[in-house]
Amino acid sequence: MTATDTDTQLNDLRGILGPEYVKTGADAAPWSHDWPGHAHWTPLAVVRPANTREVAKVVQWANRTGTAIVPVSGNTGLVEGSTAEGAVMVSLDRMSAIREVRPEARVAIVEAGAILSNIHAAADAHDLIFPLTFGARGSAMIGGALSTNAGGSNVVRYGNTRHLCLGVEAVLPTGEIIDLMSELHKDNSGYDLRDLLIGAEGTLGIITAAVLKLHPKPMAYATAMVAAPSLNDALTLLNTLQRETGGAVEAFEFMPRIFMEAYLERYPEARAPFDQMHEVNILVEVGALSPRDATPGDDGRVPVTGHLEDVLGRLFEEGAILDAAVAQSDTQRQEMWARRETSAEVARLRQPLIDNDIAVPLDQIQTLLEQIVRKSQAIDPDLIPMCVAHLGDGNLHFAGWPSTDDPDTLKQIKEMVDDTAIALGGSFSAEHGVGLTKKPAMARHKNPVALQAMRAIKQALDPKGIMNPGKVLPEG
Amino acid sequence: MTATDTDTQLNDLRGILGPEYVKTGADAAPWSHDWPGHAHWTPLAVVRPANTREVAKVVQWANRTGTAIVPVSGNTGLVEGSTAEGAVMVSLDRMSAIREVRPEARVAIVEAGAILSNIHAAADAHDLIFPLTFGARGSAMIGGALSTNAGGSNVVRYGNTRHLCLGVEAVLPTGEIIDLMSELHKDNSGYDLRDLLIGAEGTLGIITAAVLKLHPKPMAYATAMVAAPSLNDALTLLNTLQRETGGAVEAFEFMPRIFMEAYLERYPEARAPFDQMHEVNILVEVGALSPRDATPGDDGRVPVTGHLEDVLGRLFEEGAILDAAVAQSDTQRQEMWARRETSAEVARLRQPLIDNDIAVPLDQIQTLLEQIVRKSQAIDPDLIPMCVAHLGDGNLHFAGWPSTDDPDTLKQIKEMVDDTAIALGGSFSAEHGVGLTKKPAMARHKNPVALQAMRAIKQALDPKGIMNPGKVLPEG
Repeated sequence: MTATDTDTQLNDLRGILGPEYVKTGADAAPWSHDWPGHAHWTPLAVVRPANTREVAKVVQWANRTGTAIVPVSGNTGLVEGSTAEGAVMVSLDRMSAIREVRPEARVAIVEAGAILSNIHAAADAHDLIFPLTFGARGSAMIGGALSTNAGGSNVVRYGNTRHLCLGVEAVLPTGEIIDLMSELHKDNSGYDLRDLLIGAEGTLGIITAAVLKLHPKPMAYATAMVAAPSLNDALTLLNTLQRETGGAVEAFEFMPRIFMEAYLERYPEARAPFDQMHEVNILVEVGALSPRDATPGDDGRVPVTGHLEDVLGRLFEEGAILDAAVAQSDTQRQEMWARRETSAEVARLRQPLIDNDIAVPLDQIQTLLEQIVRKSQAIDPDLIPMCVAHLGDGNLHFAGWPSTDDPDTLKQIKEMVDDTAIALGGSFSAEHGVGLTKKPAMARHKNPVALQAMRAIKQALDPKGIMNPGKVLPEG
Repeated sequence: MTATDTDTQLNDLRGILGPEYVKTGADAAPWSHDWPGHAHWTPLAVVRPANTREVAKVVQWANRTGTAIVPVSGNTGLVEGSTAEGAVMVSLDRMSAIREVRPEARVAIVEAGAILSNIHAAADAHDLIFPLTFGARGSAMIGGALSTNAGGSNVVRYGNTRHLCLGVEAVLPTGEIIDLMSELHKDNSGYDLRDLLIGAEGTLGIITAAVLKLHPKPMAYATAMVAAPSLNDALTLLNTLQRETGGAVEAFEFMPRIFMEAYLERYPEARAPFDQMHEVNILVEVGALSPRDATPGDDGRVPVTGHLEDVLGRLFEEGAILDAAVAQSDTQRQEMWARRETSAEVARLRQPLIDNDIAVPLDQIQTLLEQIVRKSQAIDPDLIPMCVAHLGDGNLHFAGWPSTDDPDTLKQIKEMVDDTAIALGGSFSAEHGVGLTKKPAMARHKNPVALQAMRAIKQALDPKGIMNPGKVLPEG
């Protein structure tokens, strides 16, 4: 690309959006690296359209000129899905409106740049929730959450982002606007393009708006830390709690002793969950959705909390759990969540870091973890394994601190983790997506017929290959 | 097609499957018309493969020879999605195995020809349910339910078929087998091909097996008939019951007076729901998922039933409902369901019949129905409007008995119904799919960019156009 070519391109973009919304050089720096700081790139420009029409104009121009486009919203991704060397990044950050909350219909109509925590607040004003939540909610935008089908901590109850979305609007690689903004719970009118765009990581189009499903806000929460003898015992605990509460478990998160120790080292003012350290620590939260469960009884106890205390008390008597502490205040609840939500920061305390995002069927988690620890220490005997997990949905973030930064050893460990998950019926990518970092795993593990079908769909919808090129699909 | 060509084709198929599994002529008669009896066709042959490998061989042959293929399972569809003039019908009926039920993982692994009620029984043996249910469950097969993303009566609680499926296996139009038999709740490894195949009505491939999500079986049900002053009052009732029960409403079905009268005429031995006839009759069912809600108390009442009685009693006192009867036995519960489940038969008591399958946002249902009745009687003043609805999910089956069989008048009424739903943010196809009968509505109402993207995907995956040709997608 010559300087003149670049000038022409930038002038075109300035003509479409106005010069103040075309950022280059130092102005583009915030968009020039990923959140973990692993990847750095120099985009041709970062453009900030004001609305879907402007996004469409930019994509039409890119399609005409064969320019690579990389959509970006909160830039909190973990798989290098927004690297953009020489590409035009389309930032959705100005399209942040929460257009409408319709409480009777339990929907929110939002633009792609709406920040997750702002959507939470908008729903909360109507005693509703948008259940999707994870650590980066203060900067993550819904467009990115949709494009990666983000998961998080409440999937056990409410499903992934895909399950929380009724309709989308997007700009296809041709620059055409596709309007699938349905609010319907039943709509069988042709192929499911909505779910194809969700999770496509911006390779099939740019999601610009969405109809989100809201849920009733639990009238009370019962939250507890529980120490279990083993991961399998923790799963029995999950099934018991689901049965006793009628499926009201909102979160079921696993933190090992080694994580607790690292957490306390990083945050010396924080408290340990129990007087004694345990190997298997579970954060469990139960939501009360009915007044019967949330209205304090004659003894002053909120039924949902009292019930959780009773069940955990019984399990303690039976020796099924080693310890338990039920939050008695919102402050105690926040303290329990604070531990879990720092996991990404805690894992990054040491480098190099092996981090993974794998899933297996629920009944395979203990086997998976045992195998991974054994096999990784067979490769690097001094590796420190640290693993947190969304245990309720089978998603495990195995983080390991190896004693070496030898690339071959690190690669060997990473591949072993993926291989082990796959062998147990799992996936090498649970909730973070593929981006660039999981492409080798896609090539190794994804069903070849599926890969071929994905490539055919990509080719059909983006024949010029301009939308987030090089991401998700390994070369054929 | 000359006789010799046909002979060659049949011989090829007999060679692949064995002669006894290639049916022609009178032997193929059961597959030569649809359930409502509207459509009749003569297939080249009906083939009955024993397994996925045989399906693949048949499709490979069809792809090589350019032969049209029409998959069929229970043949209970309502939109002429399996018409097959001169085509090879691939019946999945021999692939009916329920391979495995894994109660801890809450999954069932089934072949496409498994009959829905057999899946229900297999889940029930483990105190689990597969929630998808509708009138035709005794002959409908899961392959067809997946291919049409079937809905039914429990969508308000559990979602459509798509929400109840974790993984699929299918034979693509090339004859390749695509293995997406994931059991995972989080699996972001590329495009969502599963949901693309689900609801594609056999135009992108033949679903051959699936991993189904099972849910805990409610430990008790509280079921009631309620008479409401209006449809909007019924919606208020729904919201009240959802709030009071913590979202445990399993079904919320609307039957108008005119349907009740037709039902009693058709089944003279049946009972009316109330002493007096009401305009708005609701069948509501609440599931008790926890022992606390299902274990009889000191007064002998099952809490879920007692609670429903209390809430309905209070609403009756307030004048919010006109009457209510809570089932006191399983026999009474079955009697309530029997009314609703005969609706397809009752609608077909008179001909001609205008039947529709439309959906609107919940808060638009009363407006929709009022407008449709008014506008249809403006076209045909003697039209008898009869409408049942899955009110809890916004899906309305408007059935009308017009006084004329003039095709233009019938077409005018049908289009008016679709237009009215669309104008209220609805869909012309809620749960039955598109098939042939809704193709004109697809052409009229579906977003043109979406139609174009669907055609591009069809072309990419089925370049020879052999899979269920002519269905779903209107000509470009």
